[in-house]
Amino acid sequence: MSSFRVELGPNSHDVHIGAGLLGQLGVLAAASGLKPAAAALITDSNVGRLYAAAAMASLDSAGFRPVAITIPAGEASKSLATLAEIYDRLTEAQLDRSCAIFALGGGVVGDLAGLAAATYLRGLPLVQIPTTVVGQVDSALGGKTAINHHAAKNLIGAFYQPRLIVADIATLTTLPEREFREGLAEVIKYGAIMDAPFLDWLEVSVSAIHARDPAVFEIVVERSLRHKGFVVANDEREGGLRKILNFGHTLGHALEASAGYGAYLHGEAVAIGMAAAARLSHQYAALPLASRARLEALIASAGLPLELPAGWRDDIFLKALRLDKKRAGDAFEFLLLVRLGHAFTRRLTLYEIFAALQ
Amino acid sequence: MSSFRVELGPNSHDVHIGAGLLGQLGVLAAASGLKPAAAALITDSNVGRLYAAAAMASLDSAGFRPVAITIPAGEASKSLATLAEIYDRLTEAQLDRSCAIFALGGGVVGDLAGLAAATYLRGLPLVQIPTTVVGQVDSALGGKTAINHHAAKNLIGAFYQPRLIVADIATLTTLPEREFREGLAEVIKYGAIMDAPFLDWLEVSVSAIHARDPAVFEIVVERSLRHKGFVVANDEREGGLRKILNFGHTLGHALEASAGYGAYLHGEAVAIGMAAAARLSHQYAALPLASRARLEALIASAGLPLELPAGWRDDIFLKALRLDKKRAGDAFEFLLLVRLGHAFTRRLTLYEIFAALQ
Repeated sequence: MSSFRVELGPNSHDVHIGAGLLGQLGVLAAASGLKPAAAALITDSNVGRLYAAAAMASLDSAGFRPVAITIPAGEASKSLATLAEIYDRLTEAQLDRSCAIFALGGGVVGDLAGLAAATYLRGLPLVQIPTTVVGQVDSALGGKTAINHHAAKNLIGAFYQPRLIVADIATLTTLPEREFREGLAEVIKYGAIMDAPFLDWLEVSVSAIHARDPAVFEIVVERSLRHKGFVVANDEREGGLRKILNFGHTLGHALEASAGYGAYLHGEAVAIGMAAAARLSHQYAALPLASRARLEALIASAGLPLELPAGWRDDIFLKALRLDKKRAGDAFEFLLLVRLGHAFTRRLTLYEIFAALQ
Repeated sequence: MSSFRVELGPNSHDVHIGAGLLGQLGVLAAASGLKPAAAALITDSNVGRLYAAAAMASLDSAGFRPVAITIPAGEASKSLATLAEIYDRLTEAQLDRSCAIFALGGGVVGDLAGLAAATYLRGLPLVQIPTTVVGQVDSALGGKTAINHHAAKNLIGAFYQPRLIVADIATLTTLPEREFREGLAEVIKYGAIMDAPFLDWLEVSVSAIHARDPAVFEIVVERSLRHKGFVVANDEREGGLRKILNFGHTLGHALEASAGYGAYLHGEAVAIGMAAAARLSHQYAALPLASRARLEALIASAGLPLELPAGWRDDIFLKALRLDKKRAGDAFEFLLLVRLGHAFTRRLTLYEIFAALQ
């Protein structure tokens, strides 16, 4: 088990990473200072079938009294309607402010249960238990919670830090191949923006990663989350530094939204967005062509797409792009690489973006 | 104009109080550091008719480009459905994170627009422009935002501080008598819990207050808000001290919810809750009978009710009470007075509460 602490002042919390931690969930939750009491375990229909029983049993044996709330698996659950259903279930369970919400699942569960925790009674303690690569290496940490609006992904949400993150590497063994691969996009992102040696290591470890070797993957998760923890600790509310985490995400999000949710998985859209950002970096930030090629090769070796689809630049895409949270007027605060491992923000107009990607 | 600053670290903000400030709204907003840009002015059908034009003109002359979003007046608008409509309007307006939301109205507008600001793009700058007594003396300050759930009032919400509060005393002149009086409950509360000399002053000023004398009312608002600002500055998230602001609110909220929203105005329910809390204080905290009688007399002289209605202790009331955010298991953290101007928290069981109020 690897453990570290994310330093966020009054919102500081621990992170535990290891194979088999689901069986220790109750103990770890109690050790983090949560009072064993009534609680809610929010999960989805896929993850719940596999892991809810183990999580509930572990909580139960530590004195928690969890009720399970299961939402349908899939991005469609990140909606105001599903959030309203969760509110109803939480009132039925008569949780008070000392009762915790445990979010067991991938990004959808983490984002949705996180927003429920942020807004029910103006905030309940939240424990993130990510079961996907995306969740474990990235989205469970940082306090971003959200639901989608028909106009754009993650349009409605709050910054709300968890009290604890428990990442059980063993839950990744049951992840479908496509979902497994998409998570690698965020891993590559951490190398690209702030850790060139990590990129070297990923290049030589790619087959062990694809084999889901637990020892190797514990390193993948810990190194990614430590990077994220460092960034978030220095900029909890995305005022400055944290923006570097959006590398590949501006175009990625717009692509994901305009292609219809589900056409691309989040990580696939981010992979394409990173490849596009590498081209923009070559054009506007003098990223060497060889570095751009190396990044593209690593993305491809992770089994992820590189190319923007034909006709990507349509009206739906432009509308989604304008809803980007990092837009400021007619320009975008765009993340570019000056070299591998070093990102910076530059304002790019739509014209500059499109000119370089044609 | 009276001005002071609420010290909340990175969330610190100014408060301006005075007659005619609506005409200075744009200048005050720009002076607070908000970038003149696209913006949304959220108001309700009653307040909007009277004051939206002046607020929009003032914003416009300072370079803001506000769109007006008008919700139906009344507590029924504090709903997930109205919140969803506001999200739709905000996406249409293509606001980005640098754009502010101006909340012009009473508690309903402040709570609802505040939650919209807290959750749209994970947070837009918020300016509170309260136009009711309750809003000006209390609810605009402190960062509590919320909507109602059918199970209980304010069940869904977030802590989210405004960037600025502008309280135009002149807007109180058009307030209906009943709404005007209900706001006095919170004023009396500040005297009861932390400022006995303020109670003395209120006793001698009550006729000038009823006459809505602007000079007198500026004192009422400033003294109340400074007290609230002090409490909130010392306990932004209601971990300890801030709980004293709930004097009269535990029973008040449950009464308000169980009688059907609208049967009692919030301040009326709080007035009854404070009178009940005074009885409980006499029983469990040795509050002298004369102090209890003085508080009751002041509540009555403000034109507010004192008595719990016949049959108040029904199942609906009990269910609403159990949803109180300050419940901890079977007891309630109840605010009692040991003497006028000095409140403290004591756990009271349902049995103790009912025994003393029978």
